[in-house]
Amino acid sequence: MRFAKGHGTGNDFVILVDPDAGQGLSPALAVRLCDRRTGIGADGVLRAVRTRAVEAAGVPGGFQLAEWFMDYRNSDGSVAEMCGNGIRVFARYLAGRGLAQGPAFAVATRSGVRQVRLEDDGTVTAEMGRAAVLGPGRAVIGGRPWDGLRVSVGNPHLACLVGMPLAGFDLTVPPELDPAQFPEGGNVELVLPTGPRALQMRVHERGSGETRSCGTGAVAAAAAAATAAGRDDGTWQVTVPGGQLTVELAAGASWLGGPAVIVAEGELNPAWLAAADVVASHGPR
Amino acid sequence: MRFAKGHGTGNDFVILVDPDAGQGLSPALAVRLCDRRTGIGADGVLRAVRTRAVEAAGVPGGFQLAEWFMDYRNSDGSVAEMCGNGIRVFARYLAGRGLAQGPAFAVATRSGVRQVRLEDDGTVTAEMGRAAVLGPGRAVIGGRPWDGLRVSVGNPHLACLVGMPLAGFDLTVPPELDPAQFPEGGNVELVLPTGPRALQMRVHERGSGETRSCGTGAVAAAAAAATAAGRDDGTWQVTVPGGQLTVELAAGASWLGGPAVIVAEGELNPAWLAAADVVASHGPR
Repeated sequence: MRFAKGHGTGNDFVILVDPDAGQGLSPALAVRLCDRRTGIGADGVLRAVRTRAVEAAGVPGGFQLAEWFMDYRNSDGSVAEMCGNGIRVFARYLAGRGLAQGPAFAVATRSGVRQVRLEDDGTVTAEMGRAAVLGPGRAVIGGRPWDGLRVSVGNPHLACLVGMPLAGFDLTVPPELDPAQFPEGGNVELVLPTGPRALQMRVHERGSGETRSCGTGAVAAAAAAATAAGRDDGTWQVTVPGGQLTVELAAGASWLGGPAVIVAEGELNPAWLAAADVVASHGPR
Repeated sequence: MRFAKGHGTGNDFVILVDPDAGQGLSPALAVRLCDRRTGIGADGVLRAVRTRAVEAAGVPGGFQLAEWFMDYRNSDGSVAEMCGNGIRVFARYLAGRGLAQGPAFAVATRSGVRQVRLEDDGTVTAEMGRAAVLGPGRAVIGGRPWDGLRVSVGNPHLACLVGMPLAGFDLTVPPELDPAQFPEGGNVELVLPTGPRALQMRVHERGSGETRSCGTGAVAAAAAAATAAGRDDGTWQVTVPGGQLTVELAAGASWLGGPAVIVAEGELNPAWLAAADVVASHGPR
């Protein structure tokens, strides 16, 4: 089974190349691949399947607009609809291998068809959908309450504009969210504006702890900073611990841009796969 | 540049295949490869170089007994003489690729030439040299002093036989060693004998924190348990968080056996290597 490893601003992924959906991606295989000691190690797995194979498997469609479907699983084996850094790495891989043409193309995800584009400077930008500012919210971070804005980017966020250096926060303890506001939990962003269209961000991801980058979190942070500035559009530079992202906000849409790097590619050892004792679940879901 | 990733009881390594010493392994490249987000991710790098290329580079010898030299660097870029789990994974890779013949062969290391052997059941066993019990020592672990035995397996250890379940210890804070006994620090093993020739072990490695396995630590733990039982030989089953190891002790020698697994192999992306900005230092040292 062919694989690649890549990352976008320190958010890293194993890519599995399964054009005809012959192999599948079971939760157990995702967990084993993402194990950082006994597998390859990653935050998630991106399986590349041709959409025509997905259609053939009886998955309902709208996929005819894109040649490739991104079958994404988190490192705990759970399915996720979309992943902002993941789709950028996915696009870099497809373009680099000649599996997708042009500086811009479409990728099918469980959230629908998303546009991606590759810039000459190495930036890969992906369509992220609407960032919806839902209203005020609150979290207890390091024993102290902080006000923020609830933002949905497909998944729930609380983005807190804090007027102090981000290094002063302890995110080893998960922030406490109000269950009435966040019945399924959420990601918490600490946001420090550093200029008219620039901000620093740290993020605590639900289920993962603090990470070096979060694509939807960067969009949520930019949307919160824009709202605080009385706007809902514009282009924002977002500095995360893993690097630099650019968020474009427009009415009803957002885009996430930044570096996307393929580190290596090769073949999984069949003996490892056999010992991993993971039955592939055929089909993309 | 070809690479493989493998592990032995959860101690994981990137293997670089550089038979003619044409590529080298700089500290910076080791650090970049071992980064678990932006590289491949590993505890260390094992570069496979033919000993004749090492001799040609002017490195003093004794290497004529072994075809391959294991050039080892830790994830922080520093050189290490030997690595018990590393050499077992190294041997598995060479044998699997047909680069070394026979169920037993020799590998040159900075500690000298070591024998390895591959068993039919998948176990790989490596010669570890002498485990020297130096005398009593003491560490403060979780605020409480513990007595142990100072053992040298090329590197310094304090192995503490504790009469309580190992899960009760907090190794997130480094144990404090007496600088007079351990001028360069050392690894600390918590050892719980579970039978006449069996023990459980947890280990705190100098510079790395708690790890899932440590080859020299397993040898030190077995030597300490043997000494406590009034012996200096025998075969010990050592259970570490990452799996099961076997330690054979004999006068002036020791052997470490256990699983060694190749997860995957392939090619590093030239663009990643170029961006990594790492100049290879030619030669093995």
